[in-house]
This record gives sequence, structure tokens and C-alpha cells, in this order.
Amino acid sequence: MSLLVVGSVALDSVQTPTAARDDVLGGSAVFFSYAASYFTSVQLVGVVGDDWPAEHTRLLQERRIDTTGLQVVPGAQTFRWKGKYLPNMNDRETLEVHLNVFGDFDPVLPEIYRRSKYLFLANGAPTLQMKVLDQVPSAQLAVADTMDLWIREQHDELLQLLKRLDGLVLNDSEAKLLTGDENLVSAGHRVRAMGPRFVVIKKGEHGAMFFSEHETYVLPAYPTARVVDPTGAGDSFAGGMMGFLAEQDNFEPQTLKKAMAYGILVASYNVEDFSLERMKQIGRDDLELRLEEYQKMLRF
Amino acid sequence: MSLLVVGSVALDSVQTPTAARDDVLGGSAVFFSYAASYFTSVQLVGVVGDDWPAEHTRLLQERRIDTTGLQVVPGAQTFRWKGKYLPNMNDRETLEVHLNVFGDFDPVLPEIYRRSKYLFLANGAPTLQMKVLDQVPSAQLAVADTMDLWIREQHDELLQLLKRLDGLVLNDSEAKLLTGDENLVSAGHRVRAMGPRFVVIKKGEHGAMFFSEHETYVLPAYPTARVVDPTGAGDSFAGGMMGFLAEQDNFEPQTLKKAMAYGILVASYNVEDFSLERMKQIGRDDLELRLEEYQKMLRF
Repeated sequence: MSLLVVGSVALDSVQTPTAARDDVLGGSAVFFSYAASYFTSVQLVGVVGDDWPAEHTRLLQERRIDTTGLQVVPGAQTFRWKGKYLPNMNDRETLEVHLNVFGDFDPVLPEIYRRSKYLFLANGAPTLQMKVLDQVPSAQLAVADTMDLWIREQHDELLQLLKRLDGLVLNDSEAKLLTGDENLVSAGHRVRAMGPRFVVIKKGEHGAMFFSEHETYVLPAYPTARVVDPTGAGDSFAGGMMGFLAEQDNFEPQTLKKAMAYGILVASYNVEDFSLERMKQIGRDDLELRLEEYQKMLRF
Repeated sequence: MSLLVVGSVALDSVQTPTAARDDVLGGSAVFFSYAASYFTSVQLVGVVGDDWPAEHTRLLQERRIDTTGLQVVPGAQTFRWKGKYLPNMNDRETLEVHLNVFGDFDPVLPEIYRRSKYLFLANGAPTLQMKVLDQVPSAQLAVADTMDLWIREQHDELLQLLKRLDGLVLNDSEAKLLTGDENLVSAGHRVRAMGPRFVVIKKGEHGAMFFSEHETYVLPAYPTARVVDPTGAGDSFAGGMMGFLAEQDNFEPQTLKKAMAYGILVASYNVEDFSLERMKQIGRDDLELRLEEYQKMLRF
């Protein structure tokens, strides 16, 4: 089953304590699509300027990623983000943000995309996310990501959006900010009470938590000493999760849990190098092998 | 198989954002013993003053805890700790520490204790921990806890101790401090390279990690919204873990993993109330029920 994602497509400049890369392929919709493409075909909606290297589009097309919805605006510049990771490789500082063409992003979905059953609204303004949601009336599983900026600046709009979602994915500090609750377990349930049928709280190196009416669980991150660049970890997590759900074409409790595990594993590969470098080297078989190890790790 | 623990016995005063308790039963050896007593009999070595309420000793004796090794020093005062938890219930501030009689603690073990096979050296000065270790030549599984103070102030002595241990239990910030490594996976292996056959890194609300020559794994904490007082969580974790190992009387890889799970579950109960209050209400059957839920949570 095809999966639609709407989000940022960017050129990232990343500094870590030991290395740096300039203007590499990034953006929430890119990490998401690539991660999901291990499992299913993906329809990507985003916008770039004419500084966008065509090779990046080709890289996505070589996977099962349909880039019909990737709009190239002549005379405009692609969204650029520059950030620096602290020695713990978890916290980061944003050094520069140039929204450029993404600042005016107002996606009009290709007709065929509007019949998607699986929809992911990558991090973006809740107003924009709702506009997209309006265009996909057939969505049976609509999941969104959000961030601190929107929790602060579009609080009411975010609450409106939450009532319309099947799932919300956000990180631990965002869950605390949104609920004012420092306990992640009760924070998760509070977010769920705001509307979505399920909530996933991402905890970075500590894994992810899941909350639905009848289930609360935590899965740890896959333990790896090789953390080169955490950029895109959250988006590749969401891509792996949604990709598996779309592939299985169901969102029963056990499928959701396995999907979350795949999300964790795709993200564990993603952080092993900059941009999509590590994800480009692996295939579904690598994910299956790591899944076996992961399941063995959790068995006693 | 009996289990020997040497550590602090204290009267704690604890403040949380919503409640407070004064002079309640605490101390590393107390939380450890009580937690271990769900699984095995325990020999406790510690010291108190004559301000120590006899009811506390009786409470321990009503479990399988032998208090022959609990020395009462006339005219002396019991170790007192006063602390305050921040709203996140993970970080805490020490308001007062009065070592009192614990400051001169120099345990001479009862003859019968010296034949113990399972030994836990609760948090204390490495010099003291080594003196205890010298008295238990028969120990087949000697595990210790430590803290930032000793990493800083008895660094060489700690390194000496590490070479003599089978296992070390420490928390995440201590593992980073000891190794200078911000990645917990590589930090765990570095600690192991200092001597102990296995290392457990406690991550509080995020669970615990295990490192041995052939295994690296993470188990998440049991997700609970009911966190009333985290005091003793680490010691009750260690008590549950060591108690199960002593009960099973083996420390094969699968036993160690299950032991770590029990440690996590005993700790999840312990934090549900002040002092030993919650642990006093539960039995082995409650632990078994929670273990089933926990195993189900990790299965997909």
C-alpha cells in the first residue's frame, strides 16, 4: 500500500565533535521517504529551489519514491539548515536556518496522491498540516510529527490538528512541553487525550514509547557505539514505522509494535553516518538481521 | 544460596515536589536487602547508632534478612541523608549529609558471613569495599556499586577494586565520568575493560544496559506514571538482580538477563512510595505478574 509524506526537503550542514559536512541531502520528508522505501512505495510532496542537485532526485527515484510531488521553483533557493551537535550527540544547537522556498510552501497534492490510505505529515506548521489533511479525505491512517516551535506558536492550531489525527509522533521534551507533565508515561496519555488514537514519544538514545487506549509500552534503542550524525533519526524512525504499516496494510496492535521496532532499527542505521550515507548501503535483509538480534536482546 | 551485602543503613529525609517524609528507613544496604529478600535469604552488614528504631531491625528480620552483622554503636548517631527531588523526579539535590557512625564504618564480618558465595558491595569508599572483599575469599560473584564521589576522590583505589570484581553496577552519569566517554555503549565496554567481567549501567527512567565480553543489551524501565520517591531505586534494582542470581545459584547469560529484568521490576515498585512502603505491600507473586506484563511488552 502506498504511503504519502509531506514535509521539508533540505540541504543540511552538520557539525559533530569530530567531523562536519556541508550542504548534504536532508529534510524530514527525505529521511522519512528513504526509510519507508525499504518497506513500501512512497509518494513525496515537498519543494526545492533550482539550486537543488538533480542527483538527489535521482537517488530518491532509484528507490520506490515517487517525486512527482517534489516541486522545483525556478529562481528560488532550497531550505537550508545548519546545526552543531554537542559532545553527548543528543543535544544540538541550530546555527542557521534559511527557510527559503520552504517558507512559502503551500502544497497542492497531485490528484493521484489524494487517494492515499497512509499519510505522514512531517514536522511543519499545524496550519499547513491541516491543509494537507483536507486534501486526503481517504486517509485511514494519518500520523503527524510536530516540534517545540509549533507547540509554542501555533498551540490552538496544533490542538485542532490533534483532534483529526490517528497518530502523533513527538520527542520527549516536546511531550513535556505540550502537557506540562514531567513524567513521560502520564504525558503520553495526556497527549493521547488531546485527540490522536495513538501517541509515540521518541526518546533518542533511550528508544521510544507507545500509548493507545489499551496499551502502554517502551522499546529501547538498538545499542550502538557508532553514532556519527543523529540528524534525521526521528524522521527515519517515523519512515520505518509508517513504511512497515503501509506494507502490512493494517494497524493492529501487534503490527504497530513491530512497526515501531523497525522504526528504531532504521534509525539505528541512519545515525551511523551523515545524511543518507549509511541508509544507502543497507537493504531489507540488514534490517531483518538486526531485527532478529533486537528480538533476541529483548527475550529472556 | 545466601547473599551478603555490606553498605549504608540510614535515616532519610526526602522532599519531592508534592510530599515529604522525615527520618524514614533508608540506606543502600536496606533497600538492597529488602529487594533481594523476595528471592533469597540475605546477610546484612552495616552500622547504626542507638537512635536507630528497633522496629526497623524487626522489619528486616521478618523477611529473610539476617541482621547479625548490623552493629549498633552506643552513644552514636545513625547516618542521615536529606535530599530534594527536582520536578523531573530524576535529578536530586542533597540538602544534608551526616555520616555520623557510618563515617567510621570498618566492618569485621561474622565468621559465617565469610563463606558467602554471592557478595554485593553497596556504594561506599573503594578502600572499604576492598577490605570487605578481602574477608570473603569464597565469593564467586562479587559485585559492587560506586558513585561520582569515589570516581573523583579515590580514583586509583577504585581502579584497583575494579580488577577484583565480577560485576560493577553504576549509573549513566558515573559511567561517563569514569570513562570520559559520552556514548553509553562504548562507555560500558570501557568500564568492562577496567576489570569486571560484566558492567550494568543504570539509566533511571530509561532502564538499564548490560555489558559482558559477548553481550551488550538494554532493557527499558517498566513504564509507570506513579513515581512518588525514587530514593533507593538503584539499590533495589541491584537487590532484585543479585537476589535472583543467588536464588538460581548461577550466573549464566540468560540468568543474568532475567535477573536484570527482576531488578528493573523491583525498582519499579520501590519508586511507587517513600522508603520501603510500597515494597512492604508486595510479594513474589506481584513480581511474577509484572514480569509477565513486561515480557509481553517486549514481545512482537
